[in-house]
Amino acid sequence: MGEFFNVVESKKVYEFISNLKSIEDSEIIDIRESISRVSSEDVIAGEDLPGFDRSTVDGYAVKSSDVFGASVSTPAMLKVVGEIKIDEEYTKALKEGEALKVPTGGKLPNGADSVVMIEDTREAGEYIEIFKPVAPGQNVMRKDEDVSKGTTVLKKGTRINIGHVALLLNLGIIKLRVSRKLKVGIISTGDEVIEPELERKFPHVRDSNTHSLKVFLERLGYRVNRYGISRDDFEELRSFMLRSFEEDDVTVSAGGSSVGVRDYTVEAIDSIGKPGVVIHGVLVSPGKPTIFGVVDDHPFIGLPGHPSSFTLSAFTFLLPLLKRLSGETDWMLRPTGKFRITDNVFSRQGRETFVWSKRIYEDGEIFVKPLMFKSGMISPAAQADGFIRIPAGVEGYYEGDFVEFYSISESLLI
Amino acid sequence: MGEFFNVVESKKVYEFISNLKSIEDSEIIDIRESISRVSSEDVIAGEDLPGFDRSTVDGYAVKSSDVFGASVSTPAMLKVVGEIKIDEEYTKALKEGEALKVPTGGKLPNGADSVVMIEDTREAGEYIEIFKPVAPGQNVMRKDEDVSKGTTVLKKGTRINIGHVALLLNLGIIKLRVSRKLKVGIISTGDEVIEPELERKFPHVRDSNTHSLKVFLERLGYRVNRYGISRDDFEELRSFMLRSFEEDDVTVSAGGSSVGVRDYTVEAIDSIGKPGVVIHGVLVSPGKPTIFGVVDDHPFIGLPGHPSSFTLSAFTFLLPLLKRLSGETDWMLRPTGKFRITDNVFSRQGRETFVWSKRIYEDGEIFVKPLMFKSGMISPAAQADGFIRIPAGVEGYYEGDFVEFYSISESLLI
Repeated sequence: MGEFFNVVESKKVYEFISNLKSIEDSEIIDIRESISRVSSEDVIAGEDLPGFDRSTVDGYAVKSSDVFGASVSTPAMLKVVGEIKIDEEYTKALKEGEALKVPTGGKLPNGADSVVMIEDTREAGEYIEIFKPVAPGQNVMRKDEDVSKGTTVLKKGTRINIGHVALLLNLGIIKLRVSRKLKVGIISTGDEVIEPELERKFPHVRDSNTHSLKVFLERLGYRVNRYGISRDDFEELRSFMLRSFEEDDVTVSAGGSSVGVRDYTVEAIDSIGKPGVVIHGVLVSPGKPTIFGVVDDHPFIGLPGHPSSFTLSAFTFLLPLLKRLSGETDWMLRPTGKFRITDNVFSRQGRETFVWSKRIYEDGEIFVKPLMFKSGMISPAAQADGFIRIPAGVEGYYEGDFVEFYSISESLLI
Repeated sequence: MGEFFNVVESKKVYEFISNLKSIEDSEIIDIRESISRVSSEDVIAGEDLPGFDRSTVDGYAVKSSDVFGASVSTPAMLKVVGEIKIDEEYTKALKEGEALKVPTGGKLPNGADSVVMIEDTREAGEYIEIFKPVAPGQNVMRKDEDVSKGTTVLKKGTRINIGHVALLLNLGIIKLRVSRKLKVGIISTGDEVIEPELERKFPHVRDSNTHSLKVFLERLGYRVNRYGISRDDFEELRSFMLRSFEEDDVTVSAGGSSVGVRDYTVEAIDSIGKPGVVIHGVLVSPGKPTIFGVVDDHPFIGLPGHPSSFTLSAFTFLLPLLKRLSGETDWMLRPTGKFRITDNVFSRQGRETFVWSKRIYEDGEIFVKPLMFKSGMISPAAQADGFIRIPAGVEGYYEGDFVEFYSISESLLI
């Protein structure tokens, strides 16, 4: 069997990714279509929010100096000059000794600096008795307290979520410049690989990898070109790659698991241009045979062919790479949390090891159960809601140890 | 100000949701388009996986009885009858005293029951010296060990993820029956509410709620009809609702925050049919003014109008409801994890309280920081990656306490 050249720790992979150039193309879209897109500009608020001093409770707008020292035994007595609804304003200025009834969200009149909660008052004809003092500013949101005009409300490189959409729309910002959608080319390789609808006889393996990755990446908002299955043939593989290097921003290959195919893959990349293959083999399980290359700022990533390894490597290496390429600031893989593990797990020969796992909810506590089956099994990924990591140099974990867990849906970060 | 009737704990809301009827319509789609859809059938494997006894290492297929007691000082000596590639098979049966060189993933010949790793051997002409014994089945995945024909590989009510897609395609399963996409109708209410592109003068509030929810739900795979903004007028609101009850599977309204509008909303629902409004007010912050109703199995949910409360209530109440309606088995809100909190937080008057929060990664540990700003602020949701929960009856948490955290992206569970 052939050997790997240049096997590196995963740290080197992330260095490689961080050195990649993000795509420069951007487009202006409607905020209402921007969820999970990546902002390619800083956005500055052009207005204050809420835009007026606003009551945060149901009560009476007052001058705080008028209710200083008020108590149940010695209530302050103020004249009620009116009541406003949420969409009304009191156009005069509140004078000493006066109170205006305001609802939650209502606008404070000029002259008022605070709001007494309705629970701390009692109506008394044209007057109101107030049983509790308020400090200046109490129960009030100042006109620029939520957002102050000129503030950066969205940073370049942010993946847009529902909270950003709501904030920008409230500020009247309708258009946003975002990175163009990334185009990802996917190639499957292997003489034994067949389309999934075909009958399977030995040595056939159905191609799930490129299909599952395609639909997954499309859900994440990427454009995907699937080039089908290349035979174990240098020229065919190279022609598939050339098409993807022409069409796409990044090229991904799946499998083959045999050493010969890996060699073709390396040769094909190196034949396209410089520097070609940069990393050939990573000290990680699964994912050891992963290949990374780049030609003219177009990265290539060759993932292992076993479906379980393929999907896990897509989470650990491909998604961070795609985020980086889209210009996302937070592109690095991050653990969802740390949980006690229900069973012993061991690393593969001291390598950094990822294991499909599932959170278990029991008696108000959360545990993580490793789905430790044999290498090459496909079913564990279908039972997992994430995976754990055993760092390089750690032999393993014992039942009850805290381990890093990475959730599948968190990896999406939409 | 009006009072709430029938204010209940959130437990009652989840009981209401669990009693809703899931939609019955389903459709058959290609597995390659099924990510985040909900299976409406159990799927049974029609084949074994991997389908043949397979080596999990590079090595020599042997009869384990031939290498019993082998050691470095007394190696077993077997005749090498050949070498197969991953796509080849040895068509004869392995006899006593014979070994066949096999790659990882290679097919075991008949007669062999285990594989000796290449590291534990040394070539010696036509023979191979073996320095370590193997147990029967060692380094072998049996033909039905990954999936056994007849096993249920996907349960009804499962939301499909990339692992399911990969497994089903490997089994040659191309079509899947899934719940029809849910149709969600969204109505905004309020005299003060304007479209976000319009200039804002007091008392205008721009409608972010229905727009942000629409794009968010569409990303989750729902169909959304946005009916625009209804004035604070019983007849107009009722006509919007009637249209949605006609068109959609579920109707959502946003705001208004004033008591008068809530009353219209209740009247409008009650005027459509029985039982009408079932829950009017929940002991939860934010989300107290939430309304739940149902007419002819069509649920209605009225969410609070403040954008921050609206979005949080959409996570805590609306998403579970939509999952339940789609037939998902795991529809209930679930914490992502528990983390130490960086600041003190307090509940709102002993009510169950949710607070927008953000995980902080520091020195290999994960903390959660509550974004505790004033009620009605919109900006915290744009800085959060989730929210924490203070259960009913808990006054609050102190810095360093473990608290339940719910991640925004986890709530999606794709």
